[in-house]
Amino acid sequence: MTNYLPAYLTERDGSLWLTEDEHDNLKVSYRIKEIVFKEKSSFQEVMILDSYHFGRMLALDGIVQTTAIDGHIYNEMISHVPMAVHPNPKKVLIIGGGDCGVAKEVCKYEQVEQVDMVEIDELVVKACREHLPEVSGRLSDKRVHFIFDDGVKFAQSKKSEYDLIIVDSSDPIGPAQALFEKSFYESLHTALKEDGVMVCQSQSPIFHVDVMKQTRNRISELFDETKMYTAVVPTYPGGFWSFTIGAKQSIQPNASKVSGKETKYVNEQIVESCFALPQFLVKTLES
Amino acid sequence: MTNYLPAYLTERDGSLWLTEDEHDNLKVSYRIKEIVFKEKSSFQEVMILDSYHFGRMLALDGIVQTTAIDGHIYNEMISHVPMAVHPNPKKVLIIGGGDCGVAKEVCKYEQVEQVDMVEIDELVVKACREHLPEVSGRLSDKRVHFIFDDGVKFAQSKKSEYDLIIVDSSDPIGPAQALFEKSFYESLHTALKEDGVMVCQSQSPIFHVDVMKQTRNRISELFDETKMYTAVVPTYPGGFWSFTIGAKQSIQPNASKVSGKETKYVNEQIVESCFALPQFLVKTLES
Repeated sequence: MTNYLPAYLTERDGSLWLTEDEHDNLKVSYRIKEIVFKEKSSFQEVMILDSYHFGRMLALDGIVQTTAIDGHIYNEMISHVPMAVHPNPKKVLIIGGGDCGVAKEVCKYEQVEQVDMVEIDELVVKACREHLPEVSGRLSDKRVHFIFDDGVKFAQSKKSEYDLIIVDSSDPIGPAQALFEKSFYESLHTALKEDGVMVCQSQSPIFHVDVMKQTRNRISELFDETKMYTAVVPTYPGGFWSFTIGAKQSIQPNASKVSGKETKYVNEQIVESCFALPQFLVKTLES
Repeated sequence: MTNYLPAYLTERDGSLWLTEDEHDNLKVSYRIKEIVFKEKSSFQEVMILDSYHFGRMLALDGIVQTTAIDGHIYNEMISHVPMAVHPNPKKVLIIGGGDCGVAKEVCKYEQVEQVDMVEIDELVVKACREHLPEVSGRLSDKRVHFIFDDGVKFAQSKKSEYDLIIVDSSDPIGPAQALFEKSFYESLHTALKEDGVMVCQSQSPIFHVDVMKQTRNRISELFDETKMYTAVVPTYPGGFWSFTIGAKQSIQPNASKVSGKETKYVNEQIVESCFALPQFLVKTLES
């Protein structure tokens, strides 16, 4: 079997280990029980691995994207917070989000009539629906339309159509790079209705300060109101993650909207408190 | 040189790496620029390492305890939050806290008259004051009395003496295990004045649920009011950390007390929001 393993999977001391190779100066290795799914798409190598520490995990080209243990934190935070910010979101666009977790969360709101989910890699959706139910919930909701296409191109083709757009991208390298460009945010602005709201993950406030600031600046140049919030995401480097909201009209988060939703992380208090930014972040954003 | 390296330090690809060995199923390796300080005390091997990702770090027996990049988050959160909770803390006891970061934070309050810092390992204090100024601030404040002794024994000898006790322990294995015992919390209760407040780190809400719950239960059996709060600590496993406050009288956090203090993480909004617990934690604590 060893012959067929990619470089980031190694056998040591009788165990299989996945070692993330994205950082030159920090290596995280996960002990793996089993390779549950492994297939190469035209875009990347898609794997579902069963790990000892985090349970099942989705890895793309050997980089962990989400896990059974903590995937809900990220997915709930990027979904319920903007749902509490928009006055009445009915038509939602998700760009990326192949693990289906964001769509699953958005579907917890009855008023949502349609969710267009544009994911470039169909294989990610297939793998997660079948083998990562902790994150995907085996999503099968009639309101969700799967569109396997380039999210940038798709957004460019839309005008005043969506109440809410959620950009659930991977890191700004490779295929996801275009999802951090100013022209992309411009097309989101156009694709939103006049009271529309967008949200994206804007990387780590500690380790990716430049990307975070650039994202916020680009969004605030286009949108009437920009708001940043944070959450803990244990499997992401540094554990601390930022999200940026752009709104075409002024907004007032209504935390009570998440009340009664079946969630593991988000509740009213979390929605109210997530906009409190640490002092270094307040200063970074002012400078 | 290789001959003199402990097992957790290895040379690979021309670089020195520190690999934490505390988890069987997750390995984190830091690329090291330089070993700044390395000496064995009667308790442990004390090292200050200069790393590429986190800057200078304190490692005890090869386990990273605090770093130049993020040490302030933990130290500010375990200090300023209880300072905002106690009505007027003048005499403070710190148990552990050898990196001097907690004492540094407490000394930012003028009303504090005396800080007794009881650390079992003098070598940790020496190493951090000299070689980890980002965390220790090279602490030299006349109000701080260093006592190099067993914190458990020290606390047992005190009665109604302190306004605030901060337990800055390492994980509940080895020397720090006694700092998680019920009898220890009992002696803290006795050592506090009648309106006294104690705080301790209570481990990860994701990976150490049992220790966290046990800590909370033990404290709430003794103290009139128990309050839990959380923070992100990037270098700790899972990034997400819990702290537990025990108060002998009912408390009302006054966030405005941290206003104007020179901090990197804590501000009024963070003190107000840190008590908001994620839904799974609310449920875990109810069960």
